Amino acid sequence: MTNRSDGRTANQIRDIKIIKDFQKNPLASVLIECGNTRVMCSVSLENKVPGWMKAQDVPGGWVTAEYSMLPSSTHTRTRREVKRGKESGRTMEIQRLIGRSLRAAIDLEKLGPITLNIDCDVIDADGGTRCASITGASVALELAVHRLLENGTLTVNPLKEKIAAISVGIVEGEPLLDLCYVEDSAAQVDMNVIMTESGKFVEIQGTAEEQTFSFDELNAMTKLAKEGIDEIFKLQNEL
Amino acid sequence: MTNRSDGRTANQIRDIKIIKDFQKNPLASVLIECGNTRVMCSVSLENKVPGWMKAQDVPGGWVTAEYSMLPSSTHTRTRREVKRGKESGRTMEIQRLIGRSLRAAIDLEKLGPITLNIDCDVIDADGGTRCASITGASVALELAVHRLLENGTLTVNPLKEKIAAISVGIVEGEPLLDLCYVEDSAAQVDMNVIMTESGKFVEIQGTAEEQTFSFDELNAMTKLAKEGIDEIFKLQNEL
Amino acid sequence: MTNRSDGRTANQIRDIKIIKDFQKNPLASVLIECGNTRVMCSVSLENKVPGWMKAQDVPGGWVTAEYSMLPSSTHTRTRREVKRGKESGRTMEIQRLIGRSLRAAIDLEKLGPITLNIDCDVIDADGGTRCASITGASVALELAVHRLLENGTLTVNPLKEKIAAISVGIVEGEPLLDLCYVEDSAAQVDMNVIMTESGKFVEIQGTAEEQTFSFDELNAMTKLAKEGIDEIFKLQNEL
Amino acid sequence: MTNRSDGRTANQIRDIKIIKDFQKNPLASVLIECGNTRVMCSVSLENKVPGWMKAQDVPGGWVTAEYSMLPSSTHTRTRREVKRGKESGRTMEIQRLIGRSLRAAIDLEKLGPITLNIDCDVIDADGGTRCASITGASVALELAVHRLLENGTLTVNPLKEKIAAISVGIVEGEPLLDLCYVEDSAAQVDMNVIMTESGKFVEIQGTAEEQTFSFDELNAMTKLAKEGIDEIFKLQNEL
Amino acid sequence: MTNRSDGRTANQIRDIKIIKDFQKNPLASVLIECGNTRVMCSVSLENKVPGWMKAQDVPGGWVTAEYSMLPSSTHTRTRREVKRGKESGRTMEIQRLIGRSLRAAIDLEKLGPITLNIDCDVIDADGGTRCASITGASVALELAVHRLLENGTLTVNPLKEKIAAISVGIVEGEPLLDLCYVEDSAAQVDMNVIMTESGKFVEIQGTAEEQTFSFDELNAMTKLAKEGIDEIFKLQNEL
Amino acid sequence: MTNRSDGRTANQIRDIKIIKDFQKNPLASVLIECGNTRVMCSVSLENKVPGWMKAQDVPGGWVTAEYSMLPSSTHTRTRREVKRGKESGRTMEIQRLIGRSLRAAIDLEKLGPITLNIDCDVIDADGGTRCASITGASVALELAVHRLLENGTLTVNPLKEKIAAISVGIVEGEPLLDLCYVEDSAAQVDMNVIMTESGKFVEIQGTAEEQTFSFDELNAMTKLAKEGIDEIFKLQNEL
Repeated sequence: MTNRSDGRTANQIRDIKIIKDFQKNPLASVLIECGNTRVMCSVSLENKVPGWMKAQDVPGGWVTAEYSMLPSSTHTRTRREVKRGKESGRTMEIQRLIGRSLRAAIDLEKLGPITLNIDCDVIDADGGTRCASITGASVALELAVHRLLENGTLTVNPLKEKIAAISVGIVEGEPLLDLCYVEDSAAQVDMNVIMTESGKFVEIQGTAEEQTFSFDELNAMTKLAKEGIDEIFKLQNEL
Repeated sequence: MTNRSDGRTANQIRDIKIIKDFQKNPLASVLIECGNTRVMCSVSLENKVPGWMKAQDVPGGWVTAEYSMLPSSTHTRTRREVKRGKESGRTMEIQRLIGRSLRAAIDLEKLGPITLNIDCDVIDADGGTRCASITGASVALELAVHRLLENGTLTVNPLKEKIAAISVGIVEGEPLLDLCYVEDSAAQVDMNVIMTESGKFVEIQGTAEEQTFSFDELNAMTKLAKEGIDEIFKLQNEL
Repeated sequence: MTNRSDGRTANQIRDIKIIKDFQKNPLASVLIECGNTRVMCSVSLENKVPGWMKAQDVPGGWVTAEYSMLPSSTHTRTRREVKRGKESGRTMEIQRLIGRSLRAAIDLEKLGPITLNIDCDVIDADGGTRCASITGASVALELAVHRLLENGTLTVNPLKEKIAAISVGIVEGEPLLDLCYVEDSAAQVDMNVIMTESGKFVEIQGTAEEQTFSFDELNAMTKLAKEGIDEIFKLQNEL
Repeated sequence: MTNRSDGRTANQIRDIKIIKDFQKNPLASVLIECGNTRVMCSVSLENKVPGWMKAQDVPGGWVTAEYSMLPSSTHTRTRREVKRGKESGRTMEIQRLIGRSLRAAIDLEKLGPITLNIDCDVIDADGGTRCASITGASVALELAVHRLLENGTLTVNPLKEKIAAISVGIVEGEPLLDLCYVEDSAAQVDMNVIMTESGKFVEIQGTAEEQTFSFDELNAMTKLAKEGIDEIFKLQNEL
Repeated sequence: MTNRSDGRTANQIRDIKIIKDFQKNPLASVLIECGNTRVMCSVSLENKVPGWMKAQDVPGGWVTAEYSMLPSSTHTRTRREVKRGKESGRTMEIQRLIGRSLRAAIDLEKLGPITLNIDCDVIDADGGTRCASITGASVALELAVHRLLENGTLTVNPLKEKIAAISVGIVEGEPLLDLCYVEDSAAQVDMNVIMTESGKFVEIQGTAEEQTFSFDELNAMTKLAKEGIDEIFKLQNEL
Repeated sequence: MTNRSDGRTANQIRDIKIIKDFQKNPLASVLIECGNTRVMCSVSLENKVPGWMKAQDVPGGWVTAEYSMLPSSTHTRTRREVKRGKESGRTMEIQRLIGRSLRAAIDLEKLGPITLNIDCDVIDADGGTRCASITGASVALELAVHRLLENGTLTVNPLKEKIAAISVGIVEGEPLLDLCYVEDSAAQVDMNVIMTESGKFVEIQGTAEEQTFSFDELNAMTKLAKEGIDEIFKLQNEL
């Protein structure tokens, strides 16, 4: 059995703390802490929909996300993406994942002609930043929707279900839940699982890093992920 | 049971044709046709490794991929990405996937200090272009490696296993193999599966488009994908 | 007398093959092959005119062209232009030439408020890609216009005349027709000539590469170009 | 006498709180809070100097700064600068000011061939973000230098003096210290003053927003700024 | 007492020459010469206001400025900014300063819904280019306004006051007026002062380059700047 | 016979004035005036060759050109190209033409490992700016080479021949020499001819704007251009 660097058991997630309204200006914001990973997730309201929705007369509203790592969030400073004039492929990939996942949690037609912009800005990175972003953004989105219901911007609740995300991987042959950075770097297989509270998949992305994986390993990893997701929802519901 | 637009059964892949050395100048090239989807996949040799490998003294070589849709490959013309000065998120996501998948098929240390650049350029798009790109690139890569062994650039075969890719989705509640464009647009769940010839996963990406999916549906889709992959390898081995 | 690398006489053009409707999605497309040079030329319809035409109330429609070399089209792989965020001067120069030439072949006022986008994408480059692009685009444009007349988008034929293009150069003191890549690299003078079927000039661009040229040499080259253009039209009319 | 929106007197600064080591990965970091304005200031070490210093054989090291407002830091969400491919003029102006000011506080020759990168990322914006950035960065820089002295990277202390910054303006004819956002928007004159602990100017920038200002008003504002700076240093020294 | 490189006394400005209508096409243009520094300042009329003014229904018009150094204006050729795709921080900072200063000289509401674009292009750079730009632009703006009054585009004079700019610095401990390039490079403190004809400040920017400065030095420099500004206005009024 | 807007005969060029050393800092500079068109042409020395020459071990030096129209050079202000992040196709095309033409005038091997950067910046545009640029640049290049011979940077004269450029067109059926802007706008055919003093072609670019042209018209235009070029050289030699 693997000895995890922070003493956890294989199926144990890191401590999660969520501070609501960490930032003062957005409609809703959350600081989520998963072990040493910390992400600010905020939701801002825009009273219009993207150009393509307007052009194609798509009814309802939109939810979109942006993700960014602060230069100071990593051990070795990360270069600010604006300096090279465009987002990296990794950033693009992650923010598309966050946006897709949150749109799966909401009935866009019930939103009306508004856009909810979600910003996930990583303060400290120690692995699992995309999963922390999705879990935090889901909490912030719920908070935002409640406020829009309260102030009358929304008249029906568009939220279908809460979602949460967790990483799982195979390290030295053993499936481990919620990888921290050193585990992630050593993983043979790396998987991110996003699920609803009722246990359905929203997105699953598994990647062979050094070694391909079998049907059995896929099953073991998704089962482990489900355990982690259940833990997160337990915590979310105690907030 | 769904009536597929092109008359296929649920577990039937589209016809695949592969023309080797379609282009004259690259080290190796392939034109792959999967139904109405056509992609040119080529491999070019560069006698150096990326800067970060040199800086970190990583031994061996590198394999990387670029993906692009020709403006004329889609029903409505697609704007050339150079015109807006950067690749779209979708392009980035796909070319990262292609590169990762092919690196999983090769022992990079055995490559020596070279880079193999893979270009996947879509001529006609009718769904499944990323999967066709991966399957075609795998064939082109094998061809390229054989030539490098023949001309002495390589002295050991770095190929670990052949890989192939197929899409699978849930349309009107039914799992379907190898979605064409109209099926893809209507899919509730969309999944891309990349596997080795021995039936191991290289990458799996499943996305809830309109509806989340259960553990049972995940299993049904991966099983279906395996059937398709087996078909592709049968065809590849008859080339 | 120069021995040409491929055994041609000084006033002999390379074999030309034209495959119509090579691509499935555009309004019209052509694969043109001039010796070892191959270019895909396609025409797409857009139901609007450029912003400047609208702003200045210019009547009629527009024809514009884009040109690109696939990275895999050259012996040494060419870097994708989107990677550096903008088109090269060479690309700009060529696509402006293609667009100007084709606009000279068409009565823009008869087009009505539409834009015809022409894409020329080079699959294999062995010299003369800009000329092959223009000749191929002229064929594709004719095909497109016939379809627009058939489906009623156009009610009058806007085509004034067919055009074709050929290169001519002075290599080792001798004027040669239709230079391939090795000849082009060795040329002292390089000229591209675009003409109508009736033998009028649409564009002429002659450049001293290593040696300036005289009035007599200019005449010899334009005469030779005329012979080549006549050959091309003979072929086009046999299609 | 002006009634300030938050009840302060004309020469009263907002409450300042400084949390050291707010972020886990940088060499040193600080979260500074000036009223409702909050900025993360961090210092990272890079073991090289900028290219121009190397090229010109300039001895010593370098200190540089980057400034950015998080999209969620403002009442109306601010567009992420990477999306338009470059920093705004305002961002450029501010980060150049921060860098210049901190370089004035340090003897660059004593740094040795290293670069200290300062990142100022605004979490909440309520006026005075550039001044908060400079004051916070000065604290973080001192912290960083102490660590570099402790771990032997530095052998002599390069810090010449602490610096701090404060804004001052004329609102409805009256000089006010440390403007919050609503005051800043209404100011006729706006001035930023950066000073050392010994009361010398590092930088002074005064701008007529709606009304030009006299020598007397300049004197009144700089005097007021000095009072504010003295307050800040008192607080800094109690940390 | 410092011996200035060009023999001036400490409080002596360089010779100023102003040629009106140096360029033929703009509404108004000026070539200003301050010693060896030469700048073309021109004003062009645009019959619309910026998007943000329209969106926020701000009444009146707008004045904006762009600044650029010709590559050939400096001893060592300066790289053209378009080549790296964006303006430098220095350029941004300067053109924002020029625009702000000139807007302070004009009653924007009296302009009506037009934009006056000011272009300052440096032909020869020998220090003080931003100050020469502002002084020259002020003259060109006055000229432009007179023409707009004459041709009826404007019905009331929107000009509040003439402005002019001068640099002042401390070199080897002594305050010097109107620094040329070699003095600027050696300055311990560098200050740019923009004033109205009636002696009020429009903008003041003082920077410690190598040495911080005291209240007394600030006073000495602003007093010296005032002397220089008075000289410039005397000259302007003799034009 | 056409009545030209400025009273010239069909074969009459506009007045040309050339002021040497108009700018103070470059190695050599020229202000050239052709009627109402004015261009600054300057030459700067760089003690290195382009990267590709070094990589490919090409002996000798390089000559390159950049062209830009000042925003204020046109009747309606032209947007600064840096604002949209890249040069226009027109700019690219022109500066490539200028560079190619001047390289044809010089024996690059005799230059040694240096680069001569030519900057052509248009002050006033009234047609023929590219031709004025080439003629002016040729004069500036000659001046620069003489200085490099004098100061010993060059030991042999690399100049092969002087070059000059002129435009010619067909307006209302009649060939006209040296088109001004209104003539250029109305031209059916537009041609730019660059020749050496000995009457050889360096470059010829003829474009059908509204009407194709015949062999006879080509001859008439080149003959007319030769007359104009002879005039220019007469003038140049009187400088």
